[in-house]
Amino acid sequence: MFQSSLTSAAARIEARLSAALEGAADQPVTHAMRYAVSGGKRLRGFLVIESAGLYGIAPESAVDAAAAVEALHAYSLVHDDMPCMDNDDLRRGQPTVHVKWDDGTALLTGDALQTLAFDLLAAPSCHADPAVRIDLVASLAKASGIDGMVLGQAQDIAAETAGRPLSLEEITELQANKTGALIRWSAEAGARLARADIAPLTAYSTALGLAFQIADDILDVEGDAAKTGKRVHKDADAGKATFVSLLGLDGAKARAKALVEEAEDALSPFGEGAETLKQAARFVIARES
Amino acid sequence: MFQSSLTSAAARIEARLSAALEGAADQPVTHAMRYAVSGGKRLRGFLVIESAGLYGIAPESAVDAAAAVEALHAYSLVHDDMPCMDNDDLRRGQPTVHVKWDDGTALLTGDALQTLAFDLLAAPSCHADPAVRIDLVASLAKASGIDGMVLGQAQDIAAETAGRPLSLEEITELQANKTGALIRWSAEAGARLARADIAPLTAYSTALGLAFQIADDILDVEGDAAKTGKRVHKDADAGKATFVSLLGLDGAKARAKALVEEAEDALSPFGEGAETLKQAARFVIARES
Repeated sequence: MFQSSLTSAAARIEARLSAALEGAADQPVTHAMRYAVSGGKRLRGFLVIESAGLYGIAPESAVDAAAAVEALHAYSLVHDDMPCMDNDDLRRGQPTVHVKWDDGTALLTGDALQTLAFDLLAAPSCHADPAVRIDLVASLAKASGIDGMVLGQAQDIAAETAGRPLSLEEITELQANKTGALIRWSAEAGARLARADIAPLTAYSTALGLAFQIADDILDVEGDAAKTGKRVHKDADAGKATFVSLLGLDGAKARAKALVEEAEDALSPFGEGAETLKQAARFVIARES
Repeated sequence: MFQSSLTSAAARIEARLSAALEGAADQPVTHAMRYAVSGGKRLRGFLVIESAGLYGIAPESAVDAAAAVEALHAYSLVHDDMPCMDNDDLRRGQPTVHVKWDDGTALLTGDALQTLAFDLLAAPSCHADPAVRIDLVASLAKASGIDGMVLGQAQDIAAETAGRPLSLEEITELQANKTGALIRWSAEAGARLARADIAPLTAYSTALGLAFQIADDILDVEGDAAKTGKRVHKDADAGKATFVSLLGLDGAKARAKALVEEAEDALSPFGEGAETLKQAARFVIARES
């Protein structure tokens, strides 16, 4: 049920992003944008569509918001992979944008993908009510800017030059910004589309986001490059503090498991309808990529 | 009258941007954001405030939109100056962000400034009506993304490797995207804030934007680095087609003058109230920086 929902959400989001870029000019940056938004798990977009479903909103009415967060996420990956950041040459098993094209194209591609995210949320097809659309724009800006994702990236860079490994508290805050904010936004988007209280989904996605990051750190140690589609053992090689280095492998696994239970509990008000989102939480710590 | 309006708009916008970044975390990227949004002519923000004034909207009610376009413009300058783009070391007479900090910080600074632009437009203080705010977001996304500013930048890069100089038609289209789209958005914003027809301001700013770019090309030939605060003779040294290389120096000056008259004519429906915007048009071709 979770896997089929994820696959169906991914296909829907892929189609929406293709349509959004259909009329764009024939330029390398346009080709690179299409390349950067294709593939991937689409976990964030799936969270938008599934959380909207809790309130009876059909997938086709949540797909613009889902495509927006995937465009935003793709921008962050393209820029994060660049030589002046993580300098990664492999992403989803394919050459990264700056490797396939060049640094200038990667810079513009990320820039335009961020703009596309806000473009998708602002269009009437996203939601008939302008107040809902502006709420999505405002919250995505908070989640992704200097108080959210970019702050997390800055904290990550600062950690590398700090001369000491981060504490558990510091790394938890860093990750809540760097990857957590966008995962939270995704799950909360369903409630925003429904003009409902976001609190249950905030609780769910806060636990989910942290579990996701702990699982990422576990994958960096235990993962297989062929399955993850990216280089592994990066963090250990770089001597960075991770949840695994701080908690040990068993401790990290136990913490991730407890967080998944916490995420599932937060969905209890929704009853049976939340089963797929509960499965998603279990998936993030069981995945191999 | 124009100079005092420009100075007063600049001070207002400076204060708004400072306030927006006041609570931000103590990180290099935050310092670089403050650095990147300080100074400059604020012509775009001035256009927002003045065009709003045509409809009786007070400066304090237009300053969020004005600050937003200045944040957006600042992001484009920070990224454009990076080594993988224009590789400029001087901006507004000061070291560029990647020179003063590093490439990674410049990348994140531009990213977060783009987000800040949408954040400012989405906040209730920008306008009480969510429909107006979402209209500003949607139009700024169109003006700055793959159908606007970024397209112009991509066309500019493509021109460098085309193996032949651009035609007048091609360079006009390129500039309409690269710098024109944001200037148009700025002047149209006043009408959007007033829920009025944007057509007269579209006509004004389309002519103004082109005049601005022709004046830039003239400054690149005739300008003084000490006054412009940036390197001059860049385009001529690079063998790039410009309005000056295509029309000759006198031809370019005549074209700019005709465009300024066109811009002034477009404001005739507004009578006396548009005098400052008319002066602004005359200023863009008379400026020394």
